[in-house]
Amino acid sequence: MGGLVNCVAYADGRRVADVAIADISETLKHGDQFVWIGLYEPDEGLLREVQKELGLHDLAIEDAHRAHQRPKIERYGDSLFAAMRTAQLNRAERRIDFGETHLFVGPGYLVSVRHGPSLSYTEVRARCEATPQLLRKGPGFALYALMDFVVDQYFPIVDSLEEDLDQLEAEIFQEVFSRETTARIYRMKRELLELKRAVSPLVDVSNRLMRFDLALIPEDTRPYFRDVYDHAVRINEMVDMQRELLSSALEAHLALISVAQNESMKKLTAWAAIIAVPTMVAGVYGMNFKHMPELEWAFGYPAVLAVTVAVCAVLYARFKRTGWL
Amino acid sequence: MGGLVNCVAYADGRRVADVAIADISETLKHGDQFVWIGLYEPDEGLLREVQKELGLHDLAIEDAHRAHQRPKIERYGDSLFAAMRTAQLNRAERRIDFGETHLFVGPGYLVSVRHGPSLSYTEVRARCEATPQLLRKGPGFALYALMDFVVDQYFPIVDSLEEDLDQLEAEIFQEVFSRETTARIYRMKRELLELKRAVSPLVDVSNRLMRFDLALIPEDTRPYFRDVYDHAVRINEMVDMQRELLSSALEAHLALISVAQNESMKKLTAWAAIIAVPTMVAGVYGMNFKHMPELEWAFGYPAVLAVTVAVCAVLYARFKRTGWL
Amino acid sequence: MGGLVNCVAYADGRRVADVAIADISETLKHGDQFVWIGLYEPDEGLLREVQKELGLHDLAIEDAHRAHQRPKIERYGDSLFAAMRTAQLNRAERRIDFGETHLFVGPGYLVSVRHGPSLSYTEVRARCEATPQLLRKGPGFALYALMDFVVDQYFPIVDSLEEDLDQLEAEIFQEVFSRETTARIYRMKRELLELKRAVSPLVDVSNRLMRFDLALIPEDTRPYFRDVYDHAVRINEMVDMQRELLSSALEAHLALISVAQNESMKKLTAWAAIIAVPTMVAGVYGMNFKHMPELEWAFGYPAVLAVTVAVCAVLYARFKRTGWL
Amino acid sequence: MGGLVNCVAYADGRRVADVAIADISETLKHGDQFVWIGLYEPDEGLLREVQKELGLHDLAIEDAHRAHQRPKIERYGDSLFAAMRTAQLNRAERRIDFGETHLFVGPGYLVSVRHGPSLSYTEVRARCEATPQLLRKGPGFALYALMDFVVDQYFPIVDSLEEDLDQLEAEIFQEVFSRETTARIYRMKRELLELKRAVSPLVDVSNRLMRFDLALIPEDTRPYFRDVYDHAVRINEMVDMQRELLSSALEAHLALISVAQNESMKKLTAWAAIIAVPTMVAGVYGMNFKHMPELEWAFGYPAVLAVTVAVCAVLYARFKRTGWL
Amino acid sequence: MGGLVNCVAYADGRRVADVAIADISETLKHGDQFVWIGLYEPDEGLLREVQKELGLHDLAIEDAHRAHQRPKIERYGDSLFAAMRTAQLNRAERRIDFGETHLFVGPGYLVSVRHGPSLSYTEVRARCEATPQLLRKGPGFALYALMDFVVDQYFPIVDSLEEDLDQLEAEIFQEVFSRETTARIYRMKRELLELKRAVSPLVDVSNRLMRFDLALIPEDTRPYFRDVYDHAVRINEMVDMQRELLSSALEAHLALISVAQNESMKKLTAWAAIIAVPTMVAGVYGMNFKHMPELEWAFGYPAVLAVTVAVCAVLYARFKRTGWL
Repeated sequence: MGGLVNCVAYADGRRVADVAIADISETLKHGDQFVWIGLYEPDEGLLREVQKELGLHDLAIEDAHRAHQRPKIERYGDSLFAAMRTAQLNRAERRIDFGETHLFVGPGYLVSVRHGPSLSYTEVRARCEATPQLLRKGPGFALYALMDFVVDQYFPIVDSLEEDLDQLEAEIFQEVFSRETTARIYRMKRELLELKRAVSPLVDVSNRLMRFDLALIPEDTRPYFRDVYDHAVRINEMVDMQRELLSSALEAHLALISVAQNESMKKLTAWAAIIAVPTMVAGVYGMNFKHMPELEWAFGYPAVLAVTVAVCAVLYARFKRTGWL
Repeated sequence: MGGLVNCVAYADGRRVADVAIADISETLKHGDQFVWIGLYEPDEGLLREVQKELGLHDLAIEDAHRAHQRPKIERYGDSLFAAMRTAQLNRAERRIDFGETHLFVGPGYLVSVRHGPSLSYTEVRARCEATPQLLRKGPGFALYALMDFVVDQYFPIVDSLEEDLDQLEAEIFQEVFSRETTARIYRMKRELLELKRAVSPLVDVSNRLMRFDLALIPEDTRPYFRDVYDHAVRINEMVDMQRELLSSALEAHLALISVAQNESMKKLTAWAAIIAVPTMVAGVYGMNFKHMPELEWAFGYPAVLAVTVAVCAVLYARFKRTGWL
Repeated sequence: MGGLVNCVAYADGRRVADVAIADISETLKHGDQFVWIGLYEPDEGLLREVQKELGLHDLAIEDAHRAHQRPKIERYGDSLFAAMRTAQLNRAERRIDFGETHLFVGPGYLVSVRHGPSLSYTEVRARCEATPQLLRKGPGFALYALMDFVVDQYFPIVDSLEEDLDQLEAEIFQEVFSRETTARIYRMKRELLELKRAVSPLVDVSNRLMRFDLALIPEDTRPYFRDVYDHAVRINEMVDMQRELLSSALEAHLALISVAQNESMKKLTAWAAIIAVPTMVAGVYGMNFKHMPELEWAFGYPAVLAVTVAVCAVLYARFKRTGWL
Repeated sequence: MGGLVNCVAYADGRRVADVAIADISETLKHGDQFVWIGLYEPDEGLLREVQKELGLHDLAIEDAHRAHQRPKIERYGDSLFAAMRTAQLNRAERRIDFGETHLFVGPGYLVSVRHGPSLSYTEVRARCEATPQLLRKGPGFALYALMDFVVDQYFPIVDSLEEDLDQLEAEIFQEVFSRETTARIYRMKRELLELKRAVSPLVDVSNRLMRFDLALIPEDTRPYFRDVYDHAVRINEMVDMQRELLSSALEAHLALISVAQNESMKKLTAWAAIIAVPTMVAGVYGMNFKHMPELEWAFGYPAVLAVTVAVCAVLYARFKRTGWL
Repeated sequence: MGGLVNCVAYADGRRVADVAIADISETLKHGDQFVWIGLYEPDEGLLREVQKELGLHDLAIEDAHRAHQRPKIERYGDSLFAAMRTAQLNRAERRIDFGETHLFVGPGYLVSVRHGPSLSYTEVRARCEATPQLLRKGPGFALYALMDFVVDQYFPIVDSLEEDLDQLEAEIFQEVFSRETTARIYRMKRELLELKRAVSPLVDVSNRLMRFDLALIPEDTRPYFRDVYDHAVRINEMVDMQRELLSSALEAHLALISVAQNESMKKLTAWAAIIAVPTMVAGVYGMNFKHMPELEWAFGYPAVLAVTVAVCAVLYARFKRTGWL
């Protein structure tokens, strides 16, 4: 049966036994145990079986099967369905890989369903098993541990985008103006937008978890969810700040192009003016009039050359002074 | 009588019989049946008859007759009036066709009134009849089925706009800068605005349906309306995201035009400078002074040509290095 | 006494008699009648007399006298004071004329005070008198009828602005770029801003009327105020949409100017390059060197002409291919 | 003692006597009197004495002494501390002078503390004394009278800015494009921002006054505070509208500059093309080839001149037609 | 043990004794004393010991150890954890140095943990000890004193940014257009964004402190927290205003560049036109036609020169008049 990663029963915060899917409902009859099931892109058969064992709602199962959900948390009676987007930095291709995790949590069970590229939650399970005094709080605590893990993976991504932004800034203020700069600003905007879309509903999700009045989330686990909330808010703020900085960077980029263009224009005008002088003089003395006394003078040629150069020099100096050159 | 599509009575989730409009009030006296009426652009006479049979409010009937309503849901005592905009991709003419559907739902009846281009709801009816265990929940469930159908038709539209956007991006970054690009950005903005206007009130409509305290919407159908709400929110977010991306694409477009213009300007300036050299030299030696010793030299001509070419080459190399050419 | 349009007593939805201002308080002692008074730019004396007869609040009377109020609704004990801005299309001068209407509504009376250009409310009165079964609901229904009339006059205005916008779009995409286009965009923005300012508070006014807990507005007139609310929201949304479209149109306008300017620039550069060739060649062979072998050749002149034309043709072809010409 | 303007006791809405600061607490023992104290930039000693007499809170006194507060209202037990920014048009220097007024209001007293440029409140006091039937309502009414006076002084300022804006618009659409226009837009933006900052908190302050559940503000003075609120909202909206119009004016300004620049560019290109023709022709016939048959023709010179002028005329006509000239 | 600044017990607002960390829990058993502990970048051992003595929550301790928190306030039962960002002007390097302060406050204790560059709180402690009548209110008052100190340090920073902005404005309107201007606008935007991020959550933190229903914050200290709130709001508004002004300044900067560019363009066009005249004339009379009668005239040369100069003068005058030169 494709997609089962593991399915373990816990009692009093300690691992009791691996459980077969078909035995889950049996296990749950011991009121003091809870089952933590990990699935990865399960096929429909497996999902249906889990549904049957735990009595999950049709709509939630459909969501978990179809994926492409927006992050949300929904309450079905005394159980919860949560969807989150996971993110990982793909350093090789310099992009962010987004995956999805769906969680079913109820009295006595936690089911995690991973889709797409994402880290395995084996590490989270191990960390939980290492602190039985906390895991004893039940599936609510395991839910926190999973969410905390998912949220914390956004921090390195935001940091990496911050580095990209610093590099972009350096490029802009060195005024290279390659088309590549514009393309990179656009790509980064797009990434930040997707990140925003993944993170900002998490703020709401964790906020609502903090406030849910459910036996599933005992009073003393609330500070933990507040911690997740706090991290989500922080990531969200960092993304917002980067979006604002990126907009400002684009504005600076455009302003610098305008300044540069204005300078090119002034330079062009100045040089055109300077060059116009010898052109005009040469034109005049190139005319074929019979009677042009200057042409007969012995020092006509050097005199005209000298005067022309002098006028050009004066113009050049003036343009330099007024900042046109 | 123009506009009647069908009018069927259901009991316990199963189709009982086709009913004539005039017999509806009679049928409703059996408390255990409900009537589902489908109308398409009904004439006023038909609407008035339905109104009389079901005791609908004057204002709601006027709305349903006039069309051009904004999506909304209104409560009249223990019944509801809902207006939704439907959308369909018109691939032939590459645009979105918007229609309207108005729904009257009360204890024992559901009336759907379609206006303009839209898919028939026969498919929805068939799907409902295939799950009598759900349709048994009454007209509230049929309302959900219709709304779900309407909302889900926005997904392919949003997907198609996404493709358009990808194509637009590719065009922009290949820097073709045809006027057509600008016109397409504008057209797409307009379409997204209309889409937004059709979808965003649906979020509110489905949210209010989730919360209405009405016998019409039994407790166990609420997760279904939450599902509709969730889809509406998702479409709404996708439209928002595309609007933001489109704005960014326009910005990138303008930035690239600026960069290109700046480069043209630099190129123009550089070539003007290079060409000024031979022009000036030719001007000087075209002057008709009697005493111009260079003109008499045997190798004057080739020497001047060589010097001119050399100066031009130096200028060219310098401009290349500084990126002006 | 300037400004009295009419003053009529109604009982059970039917016109009873014209009443003199001085007899109003007397008339109101019959608990079953209500008085509907229409004023147009009344002088202070008249207003004071009405105030005395009906016991209106000083501040409300001051507001009604001074005009230039923003649309609002205020409750004074068991009576209401409402201010609305009316709008009419002035087709001759292609602008919108704004007026103001103030309404005093209390148990047994409705006073409408019109200021500036606006349609007479005689039509509303006639329409109400034609449906005594509705007018019998009292001054609350008359208030609805007036508001409905005022709000519905915004629809043709919005439609006319829509036409203007379509025309503007056509102009922009034909790229005429006259200064007139910019001026018209600005004028339209200004009009939309004024419209927004007149309409958007109406949304709030009608929303509050729907919710006021006042004997004046019986339960069964609420759907009517919801209808007014709905229309106000629709007009408001249409104005918002046009504002957004206008912004996009301005953006498109500027983008097209940039594209055009970029093309002019490229054309200029290309022609400058092509023309530089013959200029340079002519310059060279215009030099007066003694020893220029080409000048002596029999076919020097046609050969040089031919080469020059050929080089120009090659350049032209290349510029055509790269889209600079 | 620097800063005391006047200190008067009122009973039943009528002026009883001038009171020395030191006698205030004594006076207040007559429960039926209230004291209205006017201060202008008082020194610390005076403030401390007033504090002692009336038992004011340290923090409020510090605020009143330091000035540079943002407009706010704070409740200390059964008394209030309000800070407002006053504004006056300085026509001589064409700018707005901002001042500050702090008010302490409690059972039996009202203290107004003015800072910076502002009109004296003697006029308000006189107006209140002229309507004893209103002033009898106590210090709450005096508070209203002061706030109304402060708020109403913003109207002429907003009107004057409206005139400035009209002038600016006229200038922009006459396309003078002096740098001065840009500088004036900026200055006006700055002024509107400061105005906004002074006025917008007043909306909140007056709104809260309308709702405070304090004996100080009897039920029948509430409509007066609602009136102040209404004026504050109106000024606020007018400022917002002007800010939007100013933004649109700036956009129009920039659009017109772009249009003008585009036209200059086209003109430059067209003239360059026309002038290139005679330049080229003259260049060709200025070449020194031995064998140039045209040069020998009797009518070569006039023929060439004629052809050149003809070509230029054709070009000119074409450019005129396509709108480049 | 690294990081302990001081640890003092207070009773009735007066310093009783220095306390060793290990004796804190012992000291707190005297119900009438409270302990104020100052730490600077403590090592983990010290933090853990403080945690043990005071029974602090794990998550709060982790936050305090890791730093890089966003400003927040969290309630753990009857105690509070607050994080704030401190700011100092680094005049030498013309930038703002941000630090962090975490506060643990509970019944009987206040722990301040400073991170990064920040002023010592010795001054706050001294000030509190100078007003025992206030410090007697307990750790709640000490919390206020610390927050007030932190918030008030933002004022000189905002003032200094205001000066920078004034300078920037002056530069922009003198139209120097150095690249440096653009870079400085960007740097200032960045700084304001960071400032905003540090200050704006403080508004929320102080607002919540004003409302917390905790024995820790007695009724009579609330006006003090309202004062902190007021300062935070003011700084926040000043930062917002500067951000808006900076945006306007950037717009003005770009507008002025456009105006300047337009003028350069016009100047270039005008000069090109003027220079074209002598060039054309010289070209014509430089042609080598056999029969050019003007060339033979005695006064041909001076006549042509005179006509050329005259035409140029006329053009120059016309361009001057139309503002192109």
